[in-house]
Amino acid sequence: MDVTFLLFEGITALDAIGPYEVLQRLPDARVRFVAREVGPVRTDNGFLALHADHAMHDVARADVLVVPGGFATRQLEHDQATLEWLRAVDTTTTWTTSVCTGSMLLAAAGLLVGREATTHWSQLSRLSEYGAVPASRRVVETGKYVTAAGVSSGIDMGLTLAARIAGDEYAKAIQLGIEYDPQPPFDSGSVDKADPGTVEALITMLQRA
Amino acid sequence: MDVTFLLFEGITALDAIGPYEVLQRLPDARVRFVAREVGPVRTDNGFLALHADHAMHDVARADVLVVPGGFATRQLEHDQATLEWLRAVDTTTTWTTSVCTGSMLLAAAGLLVGREATTHWSQLSRLSEYGAVPASRRVVETGKYVTAAGVSSGIDMGLTLAARIAGDEYAKAIQLGIEYDPQPPFDSGSVDKADPGTVEALITMLQRA
Repeated sequence: MDVTFLLFEGITALDAIGPYEVLQRLPDARVRFVAREVGPVRTDNGFLALHADHAMHDVARADVLVVPGGFATRQLEHDQATLEWLRAVDTTTTWTTSVCTGSMLLAAAGLLVGREATTHWSQLSRLSEYGAVPASRRVVETGKYVTAAGVSSGIDMGLTLAARIAGDEYAKAIQLGIEYDPQPPFDSGSVDKADPGTVEALITMLQRA
Repeated sequence: MDVTFLLFEGITALDAIGPYEVLQRLPDARVRFVAREVGPVRTDNGFLALHADHAMHDVARADVLVVPGGFATRQLEHDQATLEWLRAVDTTTTWTTSVCTGSMLLAAAGLLVGREATTHWSQLSRLSEYGAVPASRRVVETGKYVTAAGVSSGIDMGLTLAARIAGDEYAKAIQLGIEYDPQPPFDSGSVDKADPGTVEALITMLQRA
């Protein structure tokens, strides 16, 4: 089973590493990290580099494709080479998936037309610009397309996918392996639960970034 | 604020990237990834490399030290260069923290003697070999030492720490930014909640790995 992650400059690290930590544990998984070129790819703030072992032009297929997000997707939505690669690999996949604004790339590639999909809550309405149907659920499945909400939701998406691929019992064992028994110290992880002051504080943080 | 992550061959990626995604968002954070040598460091199964921009001998201090885990800690517990570096940096920190079996390294360095600490549930009893007091909570604070349970618990630890450093309101905004409103499809993320079949399935998976 080939699990392929797209990397790009400006990626949000946890978007990729959340589902990676789940999917790498699937039976017979082979995971590949793919970018425009082989080499280190800097994440959003530049503090970290993830290493791409493969270049796009060397990877033509995948059983599972995972497209992470990050601020940089805003530019990549218009990058024809990336969109063409996504369309080509998608013709070979059993599952085409995204985390956070990764779904904006799938949408821009024309893969989500008429389909329900999700993304980071702050960008949700933009999915309709590409003909997708915004759905504010944490993990949205429409056929082989599975999109997840912001950043950390990729862990939930990964477990959902692991259950589809290897069965509930296997997915549960993975969950125990990564001790995913979340106990956030606050309950402000969604825009419906956060109080207005928190939303305002985040908007200030995002504008500064 | 210098936030320093230790990297090593065989690290579990999410142990580092979970708290990283939270702590990199702190005001004026500068995050450094440090390993024995500068360059790519392969994670447990070899599928991914994280890039260390700094070598241990170039980093003598940190405000926040984060020590991730992975199978490889079992050997590193006996690596005097790593343990000495941890002891030296610890004398400069405001917070010394770990995720998963990263706490075994802090314990082996003698930093947790007489202190409550946690680690991956499967290794918890081993903490007492180094004089630490095993505590089966998800995030354990004892003074400036904050240890987290297995793999994904580093996100909860990161938010707990963010609240101590920048206040609850700031931590809540980070939580909303990474949309950390966990909705795991199963409830088998801790050994107390998982059914015996799941525990057995995981033990088989670990033995194969």
